[in-house]
Amino acid sequence: MKNFKIALAQFSPHIGNIDANTQKMVEQANLAKQQQADLIIFPELSTIGYPAEDLLIRPNLSKRTQKAFAQLSEVKDIVMVFGFVHQTEDGYRYNSAAVMKDGQVLGIYNKHNLPNYGVFDEKRYFQEGHQHLIFEYLGHKFGVLICEDVWSLNTVKQLSQLNVETALVLNASPYEVGKPQHRIQTLNELAKQLNLNLVYVNQVGGQDDLIFDGSSFVTNKNGEIALQAPSFQESIYFVEYDVEQKEFKKTESAPALETFAEIYQALVMATRDYVQRSGFPGVILGLSGGIDSALTLAIAVDAIGADKVQAVMMPYTYTSQMSVEDATEQARRMGVTFGIAEIHPIVNSFMQTLYPFFGNTPADATEENLQARTRGTLLMGLSNKFGNLVLSTGNKSEISVGYCTLYGDMVGGFSVLKDVYKTIVFELAKYRNTLSETPVIPERVISRPPSAELRPDQTDQDSLPAYDVLDAILYAYIEEDQSQADIIARGFDAEVVEKVIRLVDRNEYKRRQGAIGPRISSRAFSRERRYPIVNGWTTND
Amino acid sequence: MKNFKIALAQFSPHIGNIDANTQKMVEQANLAKQQQADLIIFPELSTIGYPAEDLLIRPNLSKRTQKAFAQLSEVKDIVMVFGFVHQTEDGYRYNSAAVMKDGQVLGIYNKHNLPNYGVFDEKRYFQEGHQHLIFEYLGHKFGVLICEDVWSLNTVKQLSQLNVETALVLNASPYEVGKPQHRIQTLNELAKQLNLNLVYVNQVGGQDDLIFDGSSFVTNKNGEIALQAPSFQESIYFVEYDVEQKEFKKTESAPALETFAEIYQALVMATRDYVQRSGFPGVILGLSGGIDSALTLAIAVDAIGADKVQAVMMPYTYTSQMSVEDATEQARRMGVTFGIAEIHPIVNSFMQTLYPFFGNTPADATEENLQARTRGTLLMGLSNKFGNLVLSTGNKSEISVGYCTLYGDMVGGFSVLKDVYKTIVFELAKYRNTLSETPVIPERVISRPPSAELRPDQTDQDSLPAYDVLDAILYAYIEEDQSQADIIARGFDAEVVEKVIRLVDRNEYKRRQGAIGPRISSRAFSRERRYPIVNGWTTND
Repeated sequence: MKNFKIALAQFSPHIGNIDANTQKMVEQANLAKQQQADLIIFPELSTIGYPAEDLLIRPNLSKRTQKAFAQLSEVKDIVMVFGFVHQTEDGYRYNSAAVMKDGQVLGIYNKHNLPNYGVFDEKRYFQEGHQHLIFEYLGHKFGVLICEDVWSLNTVKQLSQLNVETALVLNASPYEVGKPQHRIQTLNELAKQLNLNLVYVNQVGGQDDLIFDGSSFVTNKNGEIALQAPSFQESIYFVEYDVEQKEFKKTESAPALETFAEIYQALVMATRDYVQRSGFPGVILGLSGGIDSALTLAIAVDAIGADKVQAVMMPYTYTSQMSVEDATEQARRMGVTFGIAEIHPIVNSFMQTLYPFFGNTPADATEENLQARTRGTLLMGLSNKFGNLVLSTGNKSEISVGYCTLYGDMVGGFSVLKDVYKTIVFELAKYRNTLSETPVIPERVISRPPSAELRPDQTDQDSLPAYDVLDAILYAYIEEDQSQADIIARGFDAEVVEKVIRLVDRNEYKRRQGAIGPRISSRAFSRERRYPIVNGWTTND
Repeated sequence: MKNFKIALAQFSPHIGNIDANTQKMVEQANLAKQQQADLIIFPELSTIGYPAEDLLIRPNLSKRTQKAFAQLSEVKDIVMVFGFVHQTEDGYRYNSAAVMKDGQVLGIYNKHNLPNYGVFDEKRYFQEGHQHLIFEYLGHKFGVLICEDVWSLNTVKQLSQLNVETALVLNASPYEVGKPQHRIQTLNELAKQLNLNLVYVNQVGGQDDLIFDGSSFVTNKNGEIALQAPSFQESIYFVEYDVEQKEFKKTESAPALETFAEIYQALVMATRDYVQRSGFPGVILGLSGGIDSALTLAIAVDAIGADKVQAVMMPYTYTSQMSVEDATEQARRMGVTFGIAEIHPIVNSFMQTLYPFFGNTPADATEENLQARTRGTLLMGLSNKFGNLVLSTGNKSEISVGYCTLYGDMVGGFSVLKDVYKTIVFELAKYRNTLSETPVIPERVISRPPSAELRPDQTDQDSLPAYDVLDAILYAYIEEDQSQADIIARGFDAEVVEKVIRLVDRNEYKRRQGAIGPRISSRAFSRERRYPIVNGWTTND
């Protein structure tokens, strides 16, 4: 018996592109072999990527998976453990892992625990497995688990009782704030409790609204963490098993990220992956002089580079001079293409056409929405002409209560701050400003009272409670599923709570037509919080 | 033993509004009692309505359900069989039916088979039941089944083997074309095969994108159909059991609808329920002179009445005189409020602002989209000012291939023809014209070649294959999940097939931001066909 080396492929698949993913897996396996690795482990469903949704029921999937196996068979002298869709002859489909060596499949493991809550729909696609897979290699006894399995004490216990020394865990575990640390702490405890080494490999990369953070790790049964891979980076990491000491040797590890650094990097990666994998040459966004668009701009620049980012300021009567100055200054500091487009003549021509219909009705939100929709149409025109993706800049607080205009400021293909509450937007802006000597976001953008600038002297707090109060109520209602009475009992003003909840409920129709955006919370809209639009659930208890 | 009478409450719940639904159930039970009914059966989950989605995980649900039971306890002298969410003390949740008499719960049945495919997500919310519920009443042996259960031969067989004479089946079975007849034929065969009477009660009404058609029925074990309730109508229907003959007596039945009548009525009900349950005073739509908006207008008028419908024609340079004439004539024939709004000055002002950015680039789809988005913004302005819901008028063929403008003709809260292929739009228009002496849709609107009129002399067939070809390819790809190679093998032109599939794949992002619309097919977009936006699945096999 000698020491052996395991490669953790923190892999970013292109969802659905089995050919390309498989080719990359072959390359990574060969690379690991060059580094003297004896075994390489890929994430859950690595051939097709996670989540592939209804691509999993396309009839050609099985043919394509067979082709992937043929490609992977070409790899020699290293054991590969990878995820794939296992379709059996009786027509069942499993979320599975294969152990392959020199083109021979040594074993297949079908995932036992299929999550079907939150963002997960695995029971739509897969059957549950019931058998364990254990294999001996290099004098060491390995077991295999897939993602949710490692969170089932029962399942892991079964494996440990089969005298497995090391469990190889294939994952596609979506990011949320604090999740990287939560995983490693909880599973490190589990490793000690069950006397089992864990090699945890997670998918990395953005896929539509989901972020996979990577943050792979190796933990020894004695509670020592041998490896902690960085979050949000695609790469291969290596650990060596010391046969004498019976443990994985400690290797250089990435320090845990501070909260706002973690969120910021998550948003940058999600934006980069969405833009690049959708094939856009660059992005365009409306810069208002406010903090949401300022932060979105910074994220866009960090994601794809200033040369691929275009910003447009579209002032109107109610736009302050300060806003124009600040937007111009941001664009200059970040080095992006910047232009100013006046919207007066367009809004006026809309009003000319609408006057005969409107008659003597007083001005209301209609006129404000015309400004927002004029801006949206201009951005889409520039997007259509030059091919850049429009980034939407609204935050979760606004989107929750519908403080945004459908087809106006909501236009865009990717809504970067969709799952980021306004109070966190402020923190992220401050964090980003610490990264360079000259802050990229002018201080005034952060310190001025937020305003949509859609009517004279407007501030957000004319219509909404202060953001710290609003966000606390929203968090209780959305993330914690608290009732109106429970939230009031926490000490918030009853009328305010009632109004906020009513707004959240009433604006489901708007959110349903909004762009997707990266999930960072424990309860994001759309895929995770699925509410009917026509909804008679009352909020009175 | 004497004859007895069963009431089938073909019930239209307000989703989530447990209080209101329960009150209506109490009223219907009392009404049935006045008609000497001995038992009344309501649809699946009748207290909360189907599908309640994530309202099912709100913490107050159990409290509200308890209150519903208290209300229902007030009903005397009739057995009620109704659907509710059963939460047990160990924290599990079941999709259940209760049998209640004079405030006593005689039994509870937990649904055995939980659908988690297509439009269904029941495993997200419920645990499976494993026990049968049988009760004797009036000397007759009843069993209970819930929806999917009756499609599991195994489950129904178990019940028949327990010597049950009549199975009471509570349903929330969504409509699709031909489904009402399909259900009755299949289950009539089953009744004969297993020697079991079936009383099948289905939810009725539109709920967001789902249509519940009702179409309740009673079938005897000898294969005779005793009752066939009308589709798309909320009412109570009665059957009498003849103890001598041991069968339910034949009663007056609604004839099966012809296909296009069925679809038309489905769309009318879905539109009415969405508008009314969302609390809109009326609707507004853009009338182009084309067939899609003409048909949408007719459906709107039939749904909520001409006095609540506003139509606006928004001509531009490329709009033909014929279109203006036909739109005007349709509006006149249907008796709706009608106005014409010129969009030239607005489009021109957009172009003035964009010229400096566009430089010398040639005109392309950008300019066409500006027309569509100007129209969309005008409609939304009128909607915001007067509160009417904007109906979107695109059809499934267009929406599949992205032949529509995001934030342009796609604006609106309800997309009436979203799941209706263009070839069926033609049939529905012809069908609607048979209903009145003067056809409400001018003949020329049906016979002229379809055109978006966004550039000179444009017709849809400049960009797309003929609609009969397009729809056949789309049907094969979307509804039948056929691969590109399979579709080409059916005899379609390879290049055309490849282009159509590429367009469908590429336009997922547009559909994701489109309004909801009523599902009539076996594979509607959104809830049922769940595809990733970033998607590397290639179409080459």
